[in-house]
Amino acid sequence: MKIGVLGTGAVGSTVGTKLIQLGHSVKMGSRTAANEKAADWVLKNGSHASQGTFADAAAFGEIVFNCTHGMASLDALTLAGAKNLNNKILVDIANALDFSKGMPPSLSVCNTDSLGEQIQRAFPDVQVVKTLNTVNCILMVKPELVANGDHDLFISGNDAGAKKKVTEILKEWFGWKSVIDLGDITTARATEMLLPLWIVLMGKYQSPNFNFKVVK
Amino acid sequence: MKIGVLGTGAVGSTVGTKLIQLGHSVKMGSRTAANEKAADWVLKNGSHASQGTFADAAAFGEIVFNCTHGMASLDALTLAGAKNLNNKILVDIANALDFSKGMPPSLSVCNTDSLGEQIQRAFPDVQVVKTLNTVNCILMVKPELVANGDHDLFISGNDAGAKKKVTEILKEWFGWKSVIDLGDITTARATEMLLPLWIVLMGKYQSPNFNFKVVK
Repeated sequence: MKIGVLGTGAVGSTVGTKLIQLGHSVKMGSRTAANEKAADWVLKNGSHASQGTFADAAAFGEIVFNCTHGMASLDALTLAGAKNLNNKILVDIANALDFSKGMPPSLSVCNTDSLGEQIQRAFPDVQVVKTLNTVNCILMVKPELVANGDHDLFISGNDAGAKKKVTEILKEWFGWKSVIDLGDITTARATEMLLPLWIVLMGKYQSPNFNFKVVK
Repeated sequence: MKIGVLGTGAVGSTVGTKLIQLGHSVKMGSRTAANEKAADWVLKNGSHASQGTFADAAAFGEIVFNCTHGMASLDALTLAGAKNLNNKILVDIANALDFSKGMPPSLSVCNTDSLGEQIQRAFPDVQVVKTLNTVNCILMVKPELVANGDHDLFISGNDAGAKKKVTEILKEWFGWKSVIDLGDITTARATEMLLPLWIVLMGKYQSPNFNFKVVK
């Protein structure tokens, strides 16, 4: 499959590399077509890896992963362009963490709105699926690193078919055993608001290798 | 021990009854000394149960539980009075859930502040300990109801001695196996912001009998 990955940070490169390893073709998008971090990533990931602008990557992908910083996601997606994203699944992994006021970061949107909803409103013809935003990028594609994979991922989105497809990707490609469908995109508020607890625990454990399991 | 319980709702009555069963004397406080729900609770809980105003209950308790609705907690605690609360541990179980705009409720304070912090700022000489606010009231005092008690509770507060004492209460009186110290009272933001996820899951499972476990 041809996949667009927006963002050149740890999330974009980790997810992109996993997708390459699975045999897919991945174009990493950034603000400039010649981004150095993207070039490094392409060099390391072989002939199925390529780079371009946000618009190039969005146009390339049959499915697109938003791995940009949450504070920059709406700008990045505007550069990617609705015409390149429409009628595609956009897997939104971003968290709108605002580090400008020091540590710990606050959220630039929460409670009565979420980044996932902002993206869905800005791109009404895109199938926005919020997921993976509650775990570290290594765990995203290697959930078995923690407790043999016995923990939960959450998924939110308005389109049932898109959530089904992304759930298959999460389980069959990335190895997730449990993906909990929370409901429509408004439930992205719930997972984005889990970040403050994640950040406190990361500081306490001095490691991002943990996750939450819902026990009943 | 003499314990004050502020609030006559499901949380106050459940926690109060558990404390009575453990052999403690509990005064349930509310806005009026003759509150009918408190009177019912006293009638059911025998000679170690009593009722009074918020101030009566705060003055009575060697330790005080804030089981009021989060939106009303600061008012209730003002009625309880700093002079009745100072130099005591206040176990803050409340969540500032705002139901005025419909379902699901939003939080009236979050992200860069929390109800726990607001209470600590308003009552600087009280040892505010935030805990129990991430689980249903039945689970608060009967954690073994779910997964044989193999799940986590969080605790936040500025005073290490107060957190130690409350952790003993949680473990030895209420039966919690795991209480995770998140840090100072600012970390109450993290657990109060877990409520939106809790509410979505409660709707999904149609049951409040679940909790989170941090897996590493």
